[in-house]
Amino acid sequence: MMEKTQIVEIIRSRRSIREFLADPVEDSIIEEILEAGRWAPSGLNNQPWRFVVVRDREIAGLLAGCTRYSSIIYSAPLLIAVFLDRDVMYDHTKDVQACGATIQNMLLAAHGMGLGAVWLGEILNQKDEVMDILNAPGSLELMAVVALGYPAAGSNRSSERRDISGITSKERFGNPWK
Amino acid sequence: MMEKTQIVEIIRSRRSIREFLADPVEDSIIEEILEAGRWAPSGLNNQPWRFVVVRDREIAGLLAGCTRYSSIIYSAPLLIAVFLDRDVMYDHTKDVQACGATIQNMLLAAHGMGLGAVWLGEILNQKDEVMDILNAPGSLELMAVVALGYPAAGSNRSSERRDISGITSKERFGNPWK
Repeated sequence: MMEKTQIVEIIRSRRSIREFLADPVEDSIIEEILEAGRWAPSGLNNQPWRFVVVRDREIAGLLAGCTRYSSIIYSAPLLIAVFLDRDVMYDHTKDVQACGATIQNMLLAAHGMGLGAVWLGEILNQKDEVMDILNAPGSLELMAVVALGYPAAGSNRSSERRDISGITSKERFGNPWK
Repeated sequence: MMEKTQIVEIIRSRRSIREFLADPVEDSIIEEILEAGRWAPSGLNNQPWRFVVVRDREIAGLLAGCTRYSSIIYSAPLLIAVFLDRDVMYDHTKDVQACGATIQNMLLAAHGMGLGAVWLGEILNQKDEVMDILNAPGSLELMAVVALGYPAAGSNRSSERRDISGITSKERFGNPWK
């Protein structure tokens, strides 16, 4: 077991990384990331997530054409497209939450292993094109593309969050936590 | 930094815990869990999650009446209701994913600190009643209730996941990962 709050420190120190070294990501590391993804919780344990791992530069180039963050996609040696499989869906909201949980697991695993990553959502504006490029059947719904790699120097930007007191109530809404 | 794959081991060893000891959860532990929650990523960093921490037994009893998993709620000394704040929403799907990420962060933090937890989604069937009990304004949307506490002996049930090969394609959908 880790020291008590070490997991929280990993969670807290993770930031979106948008610039990467050219170094490829080893298969064994990718499998640890996928392993983290597949152990997310889901309603009725339906595991609605599906992954496409993209390292091919030609395919990555096509995907770069689907987002205004193309420079991130060109920089990243590894992409993981995450889909919701509507064939196993039981509740769209809960299944979308589960996809959020699997993505977060992968981001944390990447960070914990020294990689950087960023969750790309803007690419959903061109989801049909992404589906075509990746040969995804109509039963799938694109949830996000995660770009990963070893972080370039200086790629760790600051980021802020609201204080706990600004988002948390005690017992009933509106009653301050502290 | 942790050993390379320790974060993955934390992720992999987490299970839903549905029976708890009566021991209360200290404020400092709750704050670590909330800290983990607030550091989730969100689109445009809009942080759409809102939390209500419930320990009051009377309120917990009312919430127990909103789900067929009332025994879990009675057993748990701590509940965290998670809401999406529609006032800061920018894209419902992405914001629901972000709520999934914040819930997963809290589940992992709890597990990493020796607590057990379970993500309750079935209670969404009675979301209006939950909103009333917790005085939640109509601008909020209930995402889940997380039940937490120190795990009772024998509460760690087995759970399975599909193999990586069953959920992952290489380069394009349908092309096996391995």
